[in-house]
Amino acid sequence: MARTPKGNAMVGQSGGPTAVINQSLAGVIEEACRQDSIDQVLGAVHGVRGIEEEQFVDLKRLGKTELEKVANTPAAALGSTRDKPDEEYCHRIFEVFQKHNVRYFFYIGGNDSANTANIIHTLALRAGYEIEVYHIPKTIDNDLLVTDHCPGYGSAARFVAHALMGDDLDNRSLPGIKIDVIMGRDAGFLTAASVLARRHEDDGPHLIYVPEAPVSLEKFGDDVETTVSRCGRCVVAVSEGIRDVDGVLWAKKIQHHLEKDAHGNVQLSGTGALADFLIAKTKHRFPRGRMRADTFGYLQRCFPGLVSVTDAAEARLCGRMAVRYAVGPDLSGSIALRRLGNGPHYGVETFVTPLETVAARTKSLPKEYLNAAGNDILPSFREYAEPLVGPLPEAGHVPGV
Amino acid sequence: MARTPKGNAMVGQSGGPTAVINQSLAGVIEEACRQDSIDQVLGAVHGVRGIEEEQFVDLKRLGKTELEKVANTPAAALGSTRDKPDEEYCHRIFEVFQKHNVRYFFYIGGNDSANTANIIHTLALRAGYEIEVYHIPKTIDNDLLVTDHCPGYGSAARFVAHALMGDDLDNRSLPGIKIDVIMGRDAGFLTAASVLARRHEDDGPHLIYVPEAPVSLEKFGDDVETTVSRCGRCVVAVSEGIRDVDGVLWAKKIQHHLEKDAHGNVQLSGTGALADFLIAKTKHRFPRGRMRADTFGYLQRCFPGLVSVTDAAEARLCGRMAVRYAVGPDLSGSIALRRLGNGPHYGVETFVTPLETVAARTKSLPKEYLNAAGNDILPSFREYAEPLVGPLPEAGHVPGV
Repeated sequence: MARTPKGNAMVGQSGGPTAVINQSLAGVIEEACRQDSIDQVLGAVHGVRGIEEEQFVDLKRLGKTELEKVANTPAAALGSTRDKPDEEYCHRIFEVFQKHNVRYFFYIGGNDSANTANIIHTLALRAGYEIEVYHIPKTIDNDLLVTDHCPGYGSAARFVAHALMGDDLDNRSLPGIKIDVIMGRDAGFLTAASVLARRHEDDGPHLIYVPEAPVSLEKFGDDVETTVSRCGRCVVAVSEGIRDVDGVLWAKKIQHHLEKDAHGNVQLSGTGALADFLIAKTKHRFPRGRMRADTFGYLQRCFPGLVSVTDAAEARLCGRMAVRYAVGPDLSGSIALRRLGNGPHYGVETFVTPLETVAARTKSLPKEYLNAAGNDILPSFREYAEPLVGPLPEAGHVPGV
Repeated sequence: MARTPKGNAMVGQSGGPTAVINQSLAGVIEEACRQDSIDQVLGAVHGVRGIEEEQFVDLKRLGKTELEKVANTPAAALGSTRDKPDEEYCHRIFEVFQKHNVRYFFYIGGNDSANTANIIHTLALRAGYEIEVYHIPKTIDNDLLVTDHCPGYGSAARFVAHALMGDDLDNRSLPGIKIDVIMGRDAGFLTAASVLARRHEDDGPHLIYVPEAPVSLEKFGDDVETTVSRCGRCVVAVSEGIRDVDGVLWAKKIQHHLEKDAHGNVQLSGTGALADFLIAKTKHRFPRGRMRADTFGYLQRCFPGLVSVTDAAEARLCGRMAVRYAVGPDLSGSIALRRLGNGPHYGVETFVTPLETVAARTKSLPKEYLNAAGNDILPSFREYAEPLVGPLPEAGHVPGV
């Protein structure tokens, strides 16, 4: 066969890091090292920026023990980038590829990375330069199209589930109103994972708000009030991407509000603003109640020591399979996961989807997982998310408390 | 002997919960169940409030499996309270004790709980009512006097160390300025634990600010600037109790600042305000740099699945020993830990210290752990904290990145 000419492989990481992004990197490295058709395995330092600046590391020099250590370390070990290359930028990358005889390119990232991969692939086709370009999915938001779920999501969701479980126990011991703001500006998957913390009927989170279900401040306050009168307390999981019924992000509305009020003295687009705003706008209803809000922030995406075993294994698998597809008869594309079963029969297989099916677009949390009132997540989502997150700690309670 | 009359035992939990406060509860229960001199083992629901309202649960009914489950669950399983009883409140508690023949009282909490225990003990002495009153230490702040360290601290510190480790890896992959605000309004122990995340010279946190080392906004900005020019990035761990050189909490100054500016529209004493303020006041120095701040909030104190094994064991020990001291010849007091060795020879033993030596006062992070510049923690602190926190994940790096 030898359809693809012998040449070098380049691998890079892009976008917000995850706890398992290095598993995919390790998968690419170990599999690429096994392939006769691949000569050098080059790591692009800080993604496309490293390619443009010709900053590479020789990944074949990584020993097996070192590789495993890297695989088990959160955040992009090669360095990441926020650069979203336009056509011109991609053209420079393509030139670097030609110069260094790069015939395999593996880009680990989200939909923007798939887009970059797609542009480069198109340029190469146009120039008649043979190169296999593979996008390897990575995102805590779980918002990539086609794939059943994204590597990186399970571990972030695991953190969120733990966090809500601890916070609900905390709130149970000192009852009050607690609002937790969770990452995911457009997709509610990560916020929805908070439902996994709920084991018994009176466990929090009692209310869950995702971007896919807009809510007015008044409805939000009403919901909290109803919960407090029922449970004597209320734990709320809110996406940072929560929207008002007019579709405008609350975060944007606050920004507007505060810029006007603060005379430029303090810039309040920070992480705490939404949380504090929700408290400020709700607390008049609970003059004697304890109210507090936390914003989980970056902790969600790269927390060490709490990785989902399934997520880690799947991230590794995606890296490995990308190389196998690349040296096989498949054409360029994005690696996707297909779910083969659920519950105890959970399993996945990989397949290749064309780059353009994943590039520059995102997936929302399907409406079928939302309750009618738009303030909770249905049990069907639990079935979807549980295998990705893995087993959670069990909570013990003293009867009668 | 039979110095103490046969009677009932009461146990309660108080103040902000910790991840191991139920280990102390389990220690009290299992040991109390073994004692002939103790009849009923009553749990006060929500601490002193439950005593005042005579809301008790019978803890002898908890099976061994249930007890272990409770022991391994974060946050106060009996419910906690923020009530700080005055003399009159304590008098009512004392009356309830007499009514229910409570002859042993175990109160798990911080220095306020030690104070409550002390007042009740004094009332009992005055009335000639024989009761053994023991305070069992609990706090994530590690700010109790006499004891080498407090149960609850090790697990919270473990969370902080993990969080900073993940956040530093995140920042390494996408370089910028990151500020993490950590709990501990008066004592810097928890913030100081962030130093454990630093393994190599260029690891973050690069700067650590504790309440014990006041710093001006200008010095703070200078420090960040120096770090950025040295490392190309900067991870900062800041205590929520950080103070200006005039000794005033920055959090208080912001409050003042914002109340004036926001015309009461938005109340910004929330968790995010300090973090956002630090960003706002520093970012003009880095017009092109990425700056972000997170406030860890409640996640630090009750996070499940990340408990320090040593912390859990010591919390349990304190609970058990309180009962043994209570039925033995010792007088009422607070349980304290004495360190017997360090590093691989780490170990502790318990002793009893009079309630008044712990009550209503707090300990600061000793100056000997602070560097001269007031922006870092010295290696001697690492020696102090490491055994309490337990082993941390190892990070792998790709050489040349």
